[in-house]
Amino acid sequence: MRKETDGSEFRKDIVSGDWILVAAKRARRPHRKIKKVRLDPSKKNCPFDDPQFNGAPGPLLWLPHPAAKKHKPEYKNLSKDWWIQIVPNKFPALEPHVTCPAEEPDGPYAKTKGVGFHEIIITRDHKRRISEMSPEEAESLIYAYQDRYRTLAREACIHYILIFHNQGPAAGASIFHPHSQLIAMPIIPPDVSRSLEGSRLYYERNKKCVHCAMIEWEIKKGERVVYENKKFVVLEPYASRVSYETRVFPKKHAGNFDELDSEDRMSLAETMIVSLKKIKKALDDPDYNFFIHTAPVKDGAGHYHWHIEILPKTSTWAGLELGTGIEIVAVSPEDAASELKKY
Amino acid sequence: MRKETDGSEFRKDIVSGDWILVAAKRARRPHRKIKKVRLDPSKKNCPFDDPQFNGAPGPLLWLPHPAAKKHKPEYKNLSKDWWIQIVPNKFPALEPHVTCPAEEPDGPYAKTKGVGFHEIIITRDHKRRISEMSPEEAESLIYAYQDRYRTLAREACIHYILIFHNQGPAAGASIFHPHSQLIAMPIIPPDVSRSLEGSRLYYERNKKCVHCAMIEWEIKKGERVVYENKKFVVLEPYASRVSYETRVFPKKHAGNFDELDSEDRMSLAETMIVSLKKIKKALDDPDYNFFIHTAPVKDGAGHYHWHIEILPKTSTWAGLELGTGIEIVAVSPEDAASELKKY
Repeated sequence: MRKETDGSEFRKDIVSGDWILVAAKRARRPHRKIKKVRLDPSKKNCPFDDPQFNGAPGPLLWLPHPAAKKHKPEYKNLSKDWWIQIVPNKFPALEPHVTCPAEEPDGPYAKTKGVGFHEIIITRDHKRRISEMSPEEAESLIYAYQDRYRTLAREACIHYILIFHNQGPAAGASIFHPHSQLIAMPIIPPDVSRSLEGSRLYYERNKKCVHCAMIEWEIKKGERVVYENKKFVVLEPYASRVSYETRVFPKKHAGNFDELDSEDRMSLAETMIVSLKKIKKALDDPDYNFFIHTAPVKDGAGHYHWHIEILPKTSTWAGLELGTGIEIVAVSPEDAASELKKY
Repeated sequence: MRKETDGSEFRKDIVSGDWILVAAKRARRPHRKIKKVRLDPSKKNCPFDDPQFNGAPGPLLWLPHPAAKKHKPEYKNLSKDWWIQIVPNKFPALEPHVTCPAEEPDGPYAKTKGVGFHEIIITRDHKRRISEMSPEEAESLIYAYQDRYRTLAREACIHYILIFHNQGPAAGASIFHPHSQLIAMPIIPPDVSRSLEGSRLYYERNKKCVHCAMIEWEIKKGERVVYENKKFVVLEPYASRVSYETRVFPKKHAGNFDELDSEDRMSLAETMIVSLKKIKKALDDPDYNFFIHTAPVKDGAGHYHWHIEILPKTSTWAGLELGTGIEIVAVSPEDAASELKKY
């Protein structure tokens, strides 16, 4: 049984300082659940089932299946037997460049060229998602993220790299075949700037990483922790952006996700599989997004603590959210955690 | 024919300083348009067709039809012949209070009680939307907004009042019958704070209202103006949050929308009808949200310039938007304006 919060409550995000509103009683109003729309699951027109056959250029990176790699270290027939490949996005939001663009005035406004990199990270299996992968398979996906991240971090004009994953149409995916994306851009995005600023201020005041303080408190309290192992902790954040928002933190302080070694990757793979399975079971297979929040590439930001945010799609943003920036969370993080723990 | 922007472009919002990304080529990627879901249009179970019959308390405000008012100034049989009524939201995000709540610590976090007012503004007609109203009918709706705004602005704990309208399920509406909402809250919401701060800084630097500077520039340039009359101008903002975002500005500087007199209201009514009709025709009747951005109630904010933002729902937020706070606009504001101007 779900506990009911006694009245609604504004909660302040400890990092950004933004308010969210937990309003559990709102959940009882007329049904407004996202209608389930499904993408075409057939292999026939899938651009990712055989990307090169479907006109994609040769991959920027490809990897064999972990089992194949183990048994045949010299295995090279990747064009036939790839497990992961990374290709440029055919419809990129940003495009490669020669020189780094400057901010230029445009009347009273300012603009800059939309340059950068936008790539698709494809796993071979047409249907199987991360939650259904073996830990070795998921580890190899994380390895692929890291490899491209490191390569693009060396590009002169790139200041921030976001790796993200959209599952299902309500989360903005347009293709059924599971895939992740990487976008490398010449600016630091506004949400990231605000979090970095909050993290820096907390560090200056308290001589401690804000996320470390949060993790310590949450593990002690327990009521918002969903899962933990030796290296990672999964929790519902105190000021969550949506109902059932789930965050995955490395227990050890680290600003950048590219610091993961192979043991860390295996542990993260297991953690992601467990977390996504819990969300799938508890919420009847919802669409979702997840993304990696890490420090900017050109600035160590030693005070920052990288993490993954998973946002299941359980409601639609309306005028209230769009007009205020305050997100209305219908299920409190404590109730969400106690539900997710069951699975 | 739509012009194509040559490559994509980051644009900085002149008020908040946030970046958005205009990426016109992205629009050509596999179809990701919002699937049209329709709410039950029958009158049978409509809670707003006869709110009191359906268990709503007596209205906080009700108004007769403008025609009835004109012909029978003494007309009083409102419970039968109302045109507009305002009732408390049955599933409020915020609830009334006796004393003003303080911010209190919660471990390392902070929270405050979710107190305030959440009301529904209902127009009588079960089907007819604002775009289909007569100017007199829409004027009376704006009058109702203003009346409740003024009343709640006098409440001790209230710092910000947002009036908003959700049209259709993709915009978060759960009830077919057209209605607007008002929410009065004890904090200044984060998006509003950032805009106020941007507006204040611009004013200090330039001794001029940032929105006045923008309006002046846009009217001179013309390429983003959709419509104007003596008192209002409608434009697609340079750094728009979504494709076809449309903003309605009073030409005369005013911080708060409650300063509208009856002539202003008639002009705004006409402007809203024209704007919503254009969006309906150009985008094949999309769902949309609109909201009024005005100064906080307890702080004049003389530098601020109130306005209405209309956000048609033409795409779904995905990991990229959620992970960065950068919104990807597929149709440039210039192209959007030239399309909307045709209707």
